Amino acid sequence: MINSYPFLQLDEVKVRNNIKKMAAKASGSGIKFRPHFKTHQSLEIGNWFREFPIDGITVSSLKMAKYFASDGWKSITVAFPFNILEIDELNELASGIDLRVLVVDSRSVKELDQSLTADVSVYIEIDPGYRRSGIHLNDTEQIDKLISAVNNAEKLTLHGFYSHAGHSYKCRSTSDLIEFSKSITDSLSMLKNKYDLPICFGDTPSCSVLKNFGGIDELSPGNFVFYDWIQTQIGSCDPEDIAIAMKCPVVAKYPSRNELLIHGGAVHFSKDYDLLKNREAYFGQVVENSVANWGKPVRECYLKSISQEHGIVKCSDDFFNDTETGDIITILPIHSCLTADLMGSYLTTDNVKITHLSEKRI
Amino acid sequence: MINSYPFLQLDEVKVRNNIKKMAAKASGSGIKFRPHFKTHQSLEIGNWFREFPIDGITVSSLKMAKYFASDGWKSITVAFPFNILEIDELNELASGIDLRVLVVDSRSVKELDQSLTADVSVYIEIDPGYRRSGIHLNDTEQIDKLISAVNNAEKLTLHGFYSHAGHSYKCRSTSDLIEFSKSITDSLSMLKNKYDLPICFGDTPSCSVLKNFGGIDELSPGNFVFYDWIQTQIGSCDPEDIAIAMKCPVVAKYPSRNELLIHGGAVHFSKDYDLLKNREAYFGQVVENSVANWGKPVRECYLKSISQEHGIVKCSDDFFNDTETGDIITILPIHSCLTADLMGSYLTTDNVKITHLSEKRI
Repeated sequence: MINSYPFLQLDEVKVRNNIKKMAAKASGSGIKFRPHFKTHQSLEIGNWFREFPIDGITVSSLKMAKYFASDGWKSITVAFPFNILEIDELNELASGIDLRVLVVDSRSVKELDQSLTADVSVYIEIDPGYRRSGIHLNDTEQIDKLISAVNNAEKLTLHGFYSHAGHSYKCRSTSDLIEFSKSITDSLSMLKNKYDLPICFGDTPSCSVLKNFGGIDELSPGNFVFYDWIQTQIGSCDPEDIAIAMKCPVVAKYPSRNELLIHGGAVHFSKDYDLLKNREAYFGQVVENSVANWGKPVRECYLKSISQEHGIVKCSDDFFNDTETGDIITILPIHSCLTADLMGSYLTTDNVKITHLSEKRI
Repeated sequence: MINSYPFLQLDEVKVRNNIKKMAAKASGSGIKFRPHFKTHQSLEIGNWFREFPIDGITVSSLKMAKYFASDGWKSITVAFPFNILEIDELNELASGIDLRVLVVDSRSVKELDQSLTADVSVYIEIDPGYRRSGIHLNDTEQIDKLISAVNNAEKLTLHGFYSHAGHSYKCRSTSDLIEFSKSITDSLSMLKNKYDLPICFGDTPSCSVLKNFGGIDELSPGNFVFYDWIQTQIGSCDPEDIAIAMKCPVVAKYPSRNELLIHGGAVHFSKDYDLLKNREAYFGQVVENSVANWGKPVRECYLKSISQEHGIVKCSDDFFNDTETGDIITILPIHSCLTADLMGSYLTTDNVKITHLSEKRI
């Protein structure tokens, strides 16, 4: 099956274990599980969730919703503010499944209601301080206005609130992360008490470390299915939880600076980065090679720079001396969602190809 | 033809003009033109080059070489150090066309010679100080060794030197860039005099500003076909030379902070960035909308942050007040190569779809 490098290897045992742990956490807390599928974007991996109690799924675009609806998923949240330009696709999809969309202002609610041909459930998106999308959770005036707009709409049913605390990605330790997540879920619980509406919540860092979710009713994390190197830095997971890794060929060695040139660049990894202690960016973490999959992180070995197809790996003396041109080295991506989207498919440790929505024609 | 947003618009007049200017520069200087096709990765756009004198083309992977060979390109340089794991694909392709690859060490030359079934031309890659790939231009001991290894190989013909001065991207004014480019071409000219071998050279910033190329024999820039916002900051082009732009729908307005939420994120733009004066990153430059294509850059309006599908655009008061949800805004990408690779196709200003090697199945 391997006919070209670099490729994205997937450890099915780790993926299934990550799914099992998060599903158990949701059901153990009495919370509905609506996992976000934007990270894996794969029909096969989607099927691995079916052995657990799933209330529905979450996606980030209508295109992705259509993809998963084609495989039998009947309840899908599009976790993106409704875009009036996509009304035809929305009407088509909403006629066949329980489709839920996010609304963030009264104008969109009015436009949506006027253009819908099928009934649709909506979540009011609440911004818990991330400043990306939604009404700020303290802005009760706007929240009141939007609730009343949805309740006055003919074809819309208000399902509840949706809130993504993406600023959890700024945490850099598990203890910071727990403190952060508690404060967010406390605020959302107060919102729930005020309005008596269900709350869907879901960043992977918070969902990974919280044991008590307060008033949260639905959980929709996505990244946990694979995790990635930045999640180890945030404090959400251990390196051994990471379930995908890039396999890159070494094409040149630079002994004067302990660096390797690999085939593996921005069109494979994405340009998402983490910062070294000296504040320089790096784009992936080297791990030990193993015949079956991969091993532990190798100290002082990281993807130092990337251009379109080239990558430069900074090495420890030992790793440099043990590696030759023609070898394959393994690198954990900084951000698995973007790497998977770029690679467009996976190869399991048993050499089985797994598809991705972004699979390329050629 | 427009059935989904965001999409990548292409101004064919600008593309053809960029090609014409660079081709005229090469032929006017008596230099062979071997343009790099890694930026556009498109068969149709490749065809637009055929009306100019082209010695051959340059690509960044064997996969890309195969793609363009399928459309009748007969002389192709794969501007990436030869990777022994791709020997079967190399043999297949080399049997039908004039295929040229890069070599950077004697070991690879030996492996290549032993495994080749067809004759192949090679360039010795010279690192002009970029520290990405190749032998440093002052390391004449290694250069001598590699020349002798290639000359001793049975199936390899030494074509010359290939050199990419990617560190030109660090320049931030046309005058700095001219000074930088002159010093690189001076050094490469000395190398040429010493070894009496042709030199292929090609970063877009240098090729855009130089009027005299010294001893350079072949020109292989790629990005100039579209240019992008970072090239305006480097000093390589004017904003009106940029030939592709993202068209993104506005899905929400945040009056309290003059920001717009758009559908357009890291899976569309890539995470390549430039820095504002305050050293904060930004991911694209807003331009005036126009019915046909787009207009001038809008001051104080830029893509401030991106996640997987979401983008936040910081606006001037005027632009914010003039823009409503449901509008389409136009944003020049920071790095057109990566944006085009992610988008996987183009739509011309006449609504004609143009293909890309990375086109997605769905």
